[in-house]
Amino acid sequence: MTLKKMLLIVCDGLSDRPVKEFDGRTPLQAARKPAMDALARNGINGTMDVIAPGVVPGSDTAHLALFGYDPYKTYAGRGPIEAAGVGIRVSPGDVAFRCNFATVDKSLRIIDRRAGRIRSGTRELAKALDGMKLGDITVVFREGSEHRAVLVLKGQGLDHRVSDVDPHTEGKLHKSKPLVPDAKRTADAVNAFVSRSIEILNAHPVNKERVKSGLPPANVVLPRGAGSISSLEPMTEKYGLSCAAVVGVTLVKGICRLVGMEVPDVHGATGGLDTDYRSKALATLEQLKTHDFVFVNVKAGDVAGHDGDYRLKVSVVEGIDMMLGTILREVRDDVVIALTCDHSTPVSVKEHSADPVPLTISGGGGRVDGVREFDEISVASGALGRIRGTDLMPIMLGMADRAKKFGA
Amino acid sequence: MTLKKMLLIVCDGLSDRPVKEFDGRTPLQAARKPAMDALARNGINGTMDVIAPGVVPGSDTAHLALFGYDPYKTYAGRGPIEAAGVGIRVSPGDVAFRCNFATVDKSLRIIDRRAGRIRSGTRELAKALDGMKLGDITVVFREGSEHRAVLVLKGQGLDHRVSDVDPHTEGKLHKSKPLVPDAKRTADAVNAFVSRSIEILNAHPVNKERVKSGLPPANVVLPRGAGSISSLEPMTEKYGLSCAAVVGVTLVKGICRLVGMEVPDVHGATGGLDTDYRSKALATLEQLKTHDFVFVNVKAGDVAGHDGDYRLKVSVVEGIDMMLGTILREVRDDVVIALTCDHSTPVSVKEHSADPVPLTISGGGGRVDGVREFDEISVASGALGRIRGTDLMPIMLGMADRAKKFGA
Repeated sequence: MTLKKMLLIVCDGLSDRPVKEFDGRTPLQAARKPAMDALARNGINGTMDVIAPGVVPGSDTAHLALFGYDPYKTYAGRGPIEAAGVGIRVSPGDVAFRCNFATVDKSLRIIDRRAGRIRSGTRELAKALDGMKLGDITVVFREGSEHRAVLVLKGQGLDHRVSDVDPHTEGKLHKSKPLVPDAKRTADAVNAFVSRSIEILNAHPVNKERVKSGLPPANVVLPRGAGSISSLEPMTEKYGLSCAAVVGVTLVKGICRLVGMEVPDVHGATGGLDTDYRSKALATLEQLKTHDFVFVNVKAGDVAGHDGDYRLKVSVVEGIDMMLGTILREVRDDVVIALTCDHSTPVSVKEHSADPVPLTISGGGGRVDGVREFDEISVASGALGRIRGTDLMPIMLGMADRAKKFGA
Repeated sequence: MTLKKMLLIVCDGLSDRPVKEFDGRTPLQAARKPAMDALARNGINGTMDVIAPGVVPGSDTAHLALFGYDPYKTYAGRGPIEAAGVGIRVSPGDVAFRCNFATVDKSLRIIDRRAGRIRSGTRELAKALDGMKLGDITVVFREGSEHRAVLVLKGQGLDHRVSDVDPHTEGKLHKSKPLVPDAKRTADAVNAFVSRSIEILNAHPVNKERVKSGLPPANVVLPRGAGSISSLEPMTEKYGLSCAAVVGVTLVKGICRLVGMEVPDVHGATGGLDTDYRSKALATLEQLKTHDFVFVNVKAGDVAGHDGDYRLKVSVVEGIDMMLGTILREVRDDVVIALTCDHSTPVSVKEHSADPVPLTISGGGGRVDGVREFDEISVASGALGRIRGTDLMPIMLGMADRAKKFGA
């Protein structure tokens, strides 16, 4: 018995529903994808409710489940995941928020929720807010991509159960309200932070320059999605595996860091449509040399789904298939490979849906069923049956001969 | 509606993975097995995670699950099951250990963990230790097969969370240590028992005779696998069924006794490769006359799996098929028959694995799906889907029209 390596490839939102323009085929059924089909032919196949039947997964909760963490027990808001994504270390007890830089007028009405999709200067603006003291609470603040940023409050007696300052639409700025009595101190701190942010940002050279150029100033920060984390047992300890993630998109990077994976920078992995499939394949092969478990996420399918662009989605399938082909040419049979999605994003819905996702697992001398194609319907007659997201890691560990015996 | 009888046949460790020498077929796929296939054709089929997806079952935890007891709630160590196997009644509060008779030299180093695989005289040696008093704790001690034995401590305030005396290798005798403060009294008793066993066994005529014949004396007892039991509701009460087990192997006999089955002695049922399939078939038919539920375990497939002997495994399949054929010729359609395994023991792994096991259930006028063969892959497309071990008894009871209605 040899311990096998494990490779998990997650095609974000690639799973879909029938598309009229393809005579009822899904994008996976309509695409040419020899590598995916080869994987399905050489392994066992099934469908997966990533969270539970009828639950629409977020990318964050989905990935927690795929890594074997019950999202109902471990997930409390998106803030900490975004924070981990931009490299802030969130500890149990901290409260973290996703934020937008936005524009308010003199009467404090929001006139642009994204400050004209500001792309430069946010690093300087963030620095002006980072380290702020609110009584004995310390602010950690960092810019994200474009108009996005992350706020983390550190101090005693904080509670994430507060409402959003962001009204999610243009108009009146909301006050953060405690949703439970224990969260009053936190809501007060958030409101104080927002008031101070307006003063500091209005006075900042970056914004004076923007106003001069006729651009909306990024003169307020809108926190939302407050969350805290319970401390997650790292995958290294939970499974005894060294783990690396090949991933571009910030949110998923955040999850990977929270569960203790190494997240190396991959040249060309953008988390968008222009992601470089060949770079990802080479990075995956590189990480497999030095890690027991490698996780790969490709975001582009989800983007095509949200855009409702079925042709684009087919070309994403074919791009990922190329990436997979490059990997499969180099990987030997001693790696257990799983190919799946974190959720469906049907082009007809333009949003995540609760439809189960296809799953194939092969390699390592494991069983082979009669499924010949990797798509939402073909896999459903396979030997894996219908499983849940939190079952995936245990099943992969079992096939890699890394599972522990219970009993004698 | 008539209540039907129920027959559960468990092929220990028979389930497997693809075997290279069989062109990727499993031993079940490679064997000729007309009776198993007939059963599959006349019933519903599926796969089963005996404990849970990705969990490698022990034979003990697996059988608890198959009989409908959650092993996570009812299993605390192998000792009590071994004890029940040799016919000692273990009560809640007792602590039971599996033991070896072994050989120590004058400096108390273990020089043979199995005392030369001693085969005779262990009954006399065990009698010399049975009934020993350690303060207000009473020792029950009984020999098992070959060098094996069972120790049960009975008294107030015992706790099974103690470490093994058996170092599981030749060398220095370990002291039993309490793993929690509450277990100190138990660890002290175990260590006192081991010291006394050395004195008593060294002085025993059986050992004097062995030394004279140049054989290693069985002059120490090495307890390991401490366990206690919560009290299990007997199957007779849990399901309202009279139950009998046709089983050779001690560990499984122990489980059957713990759950209140009758375990008649079956001539020729050895729990090994030389088990007499025809005797087992006749014993099964005999027990079916007088019991509502009969359980049959055939151990040989697990032995072939541990040995990594794929040819032997095929011949075990064909032996069990003969046994099944003999049973099916005599049984009418008013018996619900389930055929399955307690776990997989792939010949390529030589150990239990987490791969799900095949399951077919037929008879009693139940549904019939299109599956035509009984093997790991064919059953997976059947109408049963993928179930868990603890679901088996409820499903069989349902098909036997013995399940209770919930609601009006």
